[in-house]
Amino acid sequence: MTHFKQQLEHYQKRNNQQLEIWLDSLHLQNNALIQAMRYGLLLGGKRARPFLVYATGSIFGLSNEQLDTPASAIECIHAYSLIHDDLPAMDDDELRRGQATCHIEFDEATAILAGDALQTLAFTILAEGTLASQAENFRIKMVQGLAHASGASGMCLGQSLDLEAENRQVTLEELKLIHRNKTGALIKSAIQLGAYAAGEIGIKQLPRLNAFADKIGLAFQVQDDILDITSDTETLGKPQGSDIALNKSTYPSLLGLKGAQDKAALLLEQALLELKGIPYNTELLEQFARYVVERKN
Amino acid sequence: MTHFKQQLEHYQKRNNQQLEIWLDSLHLQNNALIQAMRYGLLLGGKRARPFLVYATGSIFGLSNEQLDTPASAIECIHAYSLIHDDLPAMDDDELRRGQATCHIEFDEATAILAGDALQTLAFTILAEGTLASQAENFRIKMVQGLAHASGASGMCLGQSLDLEAENRQVTLEELKLIHRNKTGALIKSAIQLGAYAAGEIGIKQLPRLNAFADKIGLAFQVQDDILDITSDTETLGKPQGSDIALNKSTYPSLLGLKGAQDKAALLLEQALLELKGIPYNTELLEQFARYVVERKN
Repeated sequence: MTHFKQQLEHYQKRNNQQLEIWLDSLHLQNNALIQAMRYGLLLGGKRARPFLVYATGSIFGLSNEQLDTPASAIECIHAYSLIHDDLPAMDDDELRRGQATCHIEFDEATAILAGDALQTLAFTILAEGTLASQAENFRIKMVQGLAHASGASGMCLGQSLDLEAENRQVTLEELKLIHRNKTGALIKSAIQLGAYAAGEIGIKQLPRLNAFADKIGLAFQVQDDILDITSDTETLGKPQGSDIALNKSTYPSLLGLKGAQDKAALLLEQALLELKGIPYNTELLEQFARYVVERKN
Repeated sequence: MTHFKQQLEHYQKRNNQQLEIWLDSLHLQNNALIQAMRYGLLLGGKRARPFLVYATGSIFGLSNEQLDTPASAIECIHAYSLIHDDLPAMDDDELRRGQATCHIEFDEATAILAGDALQTLAFTILAEGTLASQAENFRIKMVQGLAHASGASGMCLGQSLDLEAENRQVTLEELKLIHRNKTGALIKSAIQLGAYAAGEIGIKQLPRLNAFADKIGLAFQVQDDILDITSDTETLGKPQGSDIALNKSTYPSLLGLKGAQDKAALLLEQALLELKGIPYNTELLEQFARYVVERKN
């Protein structure tokens, strides 16, 4: 296993432990709602967004303890969005990361509520969780940033645009708009949260970090589209070819497979250029950027 | 029209105007998501929770401008919960306040997303909206309080308990637990937000205000249960007798109609006693408490 994969696993484990602590703090553990929240939140996943919080914050010398709060909060938002996206009325997926989706394991009503309550939990965590003292003044900025990235100006908008785009040809511009909101906004928010957690010195680097985030956010989606046609169901943990089945416009469908691969490579190059302008050790973010376009699932 | 009804209408209008301003600030107004959010948020409603924010804050001499932020935020949470509760997988209601529910007017996917994004908007409003200067230090407390009342320790838990209780007999204790979470938590949060908005002097009165909130929160639900059997569909704006149709345990079913009416009267008396201990003019809250148990819809 490469050093980077070890790092990813390290933060994944840490994030899972933190999320369990938050879940354990809830009353009525036997309740279906709490069990469905736990199921949806801990059902595997690479924890890419928490990783980005840790990787960004560590640039500025923050400890893991000083980054657990935003890392946990953003994963709650991501997990809620997956639970709701999988619902019959949305993408109607029965399989997620190789396991039954939340509404299959429980029922639709419980899955809707579990998603709702996981979104709320994200804001509870940001409001109550430990932060470095220099970040206290930016706690409300974190709430604002995460809400902006998650709602009608970010992730929810992206999902809505994506649903509207099904079964029709979209332009490259429309596709970018969809993904900038659907997946890009939360990736950018993860990096911003890592910077806010460092206070003033982190915020000073936000222009470069935001530009980096825009590039890898888009690269992430381009690579997702590529994998949907070049990988197989077992490696992906979800049905291969599902974009084609849903008649979705993707980067390979608009640019060709080679064109999409070139696009991903260009975005990686641009992202790495942004990192070079940051006067700190950004190796972990660099490795993440390479991983985004080189991963197989 | 009584003076109180005029006050209620005044704050209802003000709240609607404020909510429209927040909705107008979103991009892509033609998008189905934004339209469904607007529909769900402005589909009538008495605005009881915003009223409680205004009524509580005004005790401490706050202006409406200094209370618009928490009043708007809590209505977004309430509206999202109604949209999701009405979904086919939940209560499966096609009518709300005499009009088509959100998933009937739009579709299920859009209604789920609109609910999600309205929850997020509540936290955006709390993070960004205007507050009195003495409340700035309590902004994060507002986020924390609203999240606590809305999620797995409050409203979402209550809805989950309520779904679990369908088609079986529940005890009076269970029924109280359901309603303390399902409706009580948000009513209490409205009153707490009004107090936080006043800063230290508001917080000093929280013990009495919380006790008042517990009593009227429960009274609100008892009266709802009573109206479900004594009112008619047109007055209610939703099908009369729907609790019986769903085989739900209610206060009248557990205590008898007379017992439930006595319970509501007792709760009102206890609520008013709490107000007497607050050394400010609490007339508006007193009128609200009376309205809760005397209303016909």
